[in-house]
Amino acid sequence: MLQRNLALHTDLYLPRWMYIYWKEGRHNERAVFDVYYRSNPFEGGYVVFAGLENIIEYIQTLHFTEEDITYLQTMIGFPDEFKDELRNFKFNGSLSSVKEGEIVFPNEPLVRIEARIFEAKLLQTAILNIANHESLIATKYARIRQSAPGAKFLEAGSRRAQGIDAAYFGTRASYLAGFDVTSLASAGRDFGIPCGGTMEHADIQFHDDELTAFRTFASHYPDQATLLVDTYDTLKSGLPNAITVAKELAADGHKLRGIRIDSGDLSYLSKRARKMLDEAGLLDVEIVLSGDLDEYVIQDLRIQGAQANTFLVGTRGITAYEQPALGMVYKLVAREIDGELAPVIKVSSSKAKTTTPHIKEAYRIVDPETNKFKGDYITLLDEDPSQLDFVDLIDVRDPSFRNRIENFKVERLLAPIFKDGELVYTVPTIEESRQFHEQQIGRLWEEYKRLRLPEIYAVTFSDRLWKLKLDMIRKTRLASGVK
Amino acid sequence: MLQRNLALHTDLYLPRWMYIYWKEGRHNERAVFDVYYRSNPFEGGYVVFAGLENIIEYIQTLHFTEEDITYLQTMIGFPDEFKDELRNFKFNGSLSSVKEGEIVFPNEPLVRIEARIFEAKLLQTAILNIANHESLIATKYARIRQSAPGAKFLEAGSRRAQGIDAAYFGTRASYLAGFDVTSLASAGRDFGIPCGGTMEHADIQFHDDELTAFRTFASHYPDQATLLVDTYDTLKSGLPNAITVAKELAADGHKLRGIRIDSGDLSYLSKRARKMLDEAGLLDVEIVLSGDLDEYVIQDLRIQGAQANTFLVGTRGITAYEQPALGMVYKLVAREIDGELAPVIKVSSSKAKTTTPHIKEAYRIVDPETNKFKGDYITLLDEDPSQLDFVDLIDVRDPSFRNRIENFKVERLLAPIFKDGELVYTVPTIEESRQFHEQQIGRLWEEYKRLRLPEIYAVTFSDRLWKLKLDMIRKTRLASGVK
Repeated sequence: MLQRNLALHTDLYLPRWMYIYWKEGRHNERAVFDVYYRSNPFEGGYVVFAGLENIIEYIQTLHFTEEDITYLQTMIGFPDEFKDELRNFKFNGSLSSVKEGEIVFPNEPLVRIEARIFEAKLLQTAILNIANHESLIATKYARIRQSAPGAKFLEAGSRRAQGIDAAYFGTRASYLAGFDVTSLASAGRDFGIPCGGTMEHADIQFHDDELTAFRTFASHYPDQATLLVDTYDTLKSGLPNAITVAKELAADGHKLRGIRIDSGDLSYLSKRARKMLDEAGLLDVEIVLSGDLDEYVIQDLRIQGAQANTFLVGTRGITAYEQPALGMVYKLVAREIDGELAPVIKVSSSKAKTTTPHIKEAYRIVDPETNKFKGDYITLLDEDPSQLDFVDLIDVRDPSFRNRIENFKVERLLAPIFKDGELVYTVPTIEESRQFHEQQIGRLWEEYKRLRLPEIYAVTFSDRLWKLKLDMIRKTRLASGVK
Repeated sequence: MLQRNLALHTDLYLPRWMYIYWKEGRHNERAVFDVYYRSNPFEGGYVVFAGLENIIEYIQTLHFTEEDITYLQTMIGFPDEFKDELRNFKFNGSLSSVKEGEIVFPNEPLVRIEARIFEAKLLQTAILNIANHESLIATKYARIRQSAPGAKFLEAGSRRAQGIDAAYFGTRASYLAGFDVTSLASAGRDFGIPCGGTMEHADIQFHDDELTAFRTFASHYPDQATLLVDTYDTLKSGLPNAITVAKELAADGHKLRGIRIDSGDLSYLSKRARKMLDEAGLLDVEIVLSGDLDEYVIQDLRIQGAQANTFLVGTRGITAYEQPALGMVYKLVAREIDGELAPVIKVSSSKAKTTTPHIKEAYRIVDPETNKFKGDYITLLDEDPSQLDFVDLIDVRDPSFRNRIENFKVERLLAPIFKDGELVYTVPTIEESRQFHEQQIGRLWEEYKRLRLPEIYAVTFSDRLWKLKLDMIRKTRLASGVK
C-alpha cells in the first residue's frame, strides 16, 4: 500500500558506495546484513515486529527510473556505463524475517539480508525506516492494549501523526497490536480494519443547543449514536441531555450506544456518569473515554475504578509519545572472502555497539507443557538446537548465572521471504497477522509485559557463536593496534 | 509531492456528519474554522509554521473515487442520491494561511477556512495531520539550527523517522528551518535540497583494514571525502589513518574534506582530533560530529569547546524526540445564521480549551526602527490596527500589565490562499520559503529564542474581540444552565 517507487528513498552515501564497489570490481561480492535493535523502547520488555508487508512491497517495486539515474549521476559523478548497472537493478538476493506481530527482543536478528553488496547496500534506509516506524507503533499500541484487557480500544490519532504515512501505517500497526477499531477511513477501506467514530464538539456548536444536536444525531443513527457529552458541562448538561435522548430512543424501540467524555477528570466523571446512566435504567449505554490516554493513564484510571467500556487513543499512541524512535540498525555481519561468506565484526568502545558476527539463526525455546516462551537462542547457521539435550539460557544481567533447560521444543524465528530474488512467502492478511500477534503475546509470561521494570527476557548466544565473537573482538583489536 | 488522493484520509465521523447535514438540508450553510495551537512545543518560545504546500496540493487534488464512495456508503449508510454529492465534491471555499517558514505563536489563527460546512468539515484530519507534522519538525530543526549559528547542519534522520513521509517531508522541514544539507536522495531530487553523505562503518568493514577503506574512498573522491574515523579507535587508528590519507591526497594536489566522529565523547575526541589535524598541518580538514545530537547536546558541546564544523542530526530532529506531537486544532468559530456568519464559541471548564469566537485577522506589530517583532494583535475582521494611535500589548502572565506601543507598523499574517475554490496564491519555492524563514527568525529578539524559559511573546486580542469572547462565555454558560 506504499504505492511508490522508493529507489531514491536512500541516504546518498549508499548509492555512492554502490558505485565505488562497482568501480573497484567488487560489486558482485556477497554480503550479509542483520537488522536488530539494542534495547527495548518505553523501558518495556519486548517489541512487536511490524513492517514486513511494506518491506516486501518496497523490494518488489524497487527500480531506478531515468530521472533517478540522472539525479544520481549529477550527485555522485559516474560514467554512463554505470547507468546500465542501475537500470538493470533488481533485488536478486535472499531475505529472511520474523513475521509481523511476532514478539521480539534486543540483539537478535529480525531481518537478514544476503545479496551482492551492490543490492544489499541500497535496501538499508527504507527497510530501517519502515521497520523502525511500524514496530515502534505496534509495540506502543500493544502496551496500551495490554493495559486494559477487557476493554475495547479505538485508534484516533491521525491528526497528530508525523505525516500521512505515519497516520495510515500507524493505524495498521494499532490493529495488528490488538486495537479494535480505527477512526481513519482510508485505513478502513484499504486494510479492512473496522472503522468508526461519532461526533465532535463542532457538531454540537453547529446546532442551537446540545439537546438538538443529540436528537439530530440520534434521529439518523438511532442504534449507533455515541454522544459527546462534555461540550458545555458533562454532568449538568451533557449527561442529562444524553439520558433524555436515550429514553426517547428507547420509547421508539432503539438504543443509545454510548456517551463519550473527552475532558475533565475522567475517573471522577466516568464514575458519576455510570451512576447517572444506571439510575436512569440505561445499564447498557457504554462509556467511551478519551483525551491524551496512554497505558499509564489507563492503568491509573482502572486502579481508581473509572468506568469505561472503550478507550479512544490518539496522540500518545500514534507518535509513541514517550519514545518516538526505535533504534533498529542494519549491520554487516559477513562478507565474501575467497568465494566464501566469512564473518565480520565492528568492535566499538561501547560493548552494546559491538556487532555479533556471521550468519545466524534465531530460535525460540518453548516450554512444551505451557507452550510459553522460555528464551531465545541465537546460533550459527549450521547449529541445530533441537538436537541438544539442554540449552543454558543466560541472564544478561549476570552472565555467570545459567538457567539450564532440558525439556523444550524450538521454533525458528526467521522465515524465508525472498530466495534469490523470488518471493517465497505467502504474505498473511492483516487479520491473520493480528491473530498471530494475539497468540504470541499470550505465550509471553506476564512478568515480561510489566509496563516498567519488567523481567528481562533471555536472549542467549550459542557457545560457538559467543566464542567466535570473542575471538574476533580480540583479533580485531590486535590488528588495529588497539590494546 | 504527496501525489495521492486523500479524500478518505479523514476520521470517519467527518463524512458521517457531512451526510447528516445534507440530510438535514443544512450542508450548504457556511462555516468558518480556525487552525491554531495552544502552547509552544519543547518549552520553547515559538513555532515555525510549515505544511502549506502540501495542504494546497491536498485541496487541489481532493475528490472522491467510486471506490471511496462505495466504502463510505457501506460504513455510513446513505441513499444513492447522496453519492452525487460526493462525486461532485470540490473545495469551493476560501482559505487563508500564514506562510511557510513564518514564526507563529499560541492562540492565533494560522489557517482559516471559510466554506460550506459540507466542505469545511472534510478538510480537518488531513490539514491538521500535515500542518502539525511539518510545523513540529520545522520548529525542532530551527531550534537545533539556532543552537550553533556558525556551524553547518546536515540532516540524516530518515532511518528513524515515523514512516516514509515523515522522512521525506521532515527533511523538507529541516531545510526550510535552515539546515544546509540532507542525506536523503529523494528529498534532494524532488525539493532541490543540497544532498550529501560519505560512508558508514560497513564500508570500513568491507575492506581488509581501515587504511585501505580510506584510500579507496579517497581515490574515487579525492576532494570530497569525509572519513569516518571511529570504527576501531578514533584517536589510535582512525585519526592516524585519516592523516596518512590526507597527506597522500595533498601530495597529489588534492584535499581531504573532513573526518567524522560518530561515537565516544564528542567533546574530548573532537578537541584531540582538531589538535592532531592541526599539528599535521591539516588546518582546513573539517570535523563532522554525529550521534543522537539535538539542540541541548550541541549547546553543551559548544560550551565545552568541542571542535566541529558540521553537526549531523538524525533521530532527535526527524522525530522531534522530546515532544513528538504538536497540538494544532481545527475549531468552528463562526457559522451561518439567518444568512449571516455569526460567531460561535466552545466553552470549556479548561480556560485554555475555550475557543475564541468569530472570523479574525492576525497582525504583527513591528518596531519600525529595528524591524523586529513587538507582538501579535488579533482582531475582528473589520478592525484595522494600522489606523490606531497605539496598541496595548498584554502580558499573558499578568493581563493587568499592558505594554503600550505608539510607534509601530503592522503586517498581516494570514495570506489568501484559496478564494471561492480558486488558488490565488503563488506558491513559493522551498528556497524562497527558507529565505523567508531566515528573515523572520532574524526579526525575533533573542529572548524569545532561548531554548528553555524564553520570554513569552505577546499575542493580544483587540478590545472588541476580547469583549465578544467574554460576552459569549457568559451567555453560553447561562443558556446551558451552568452557573
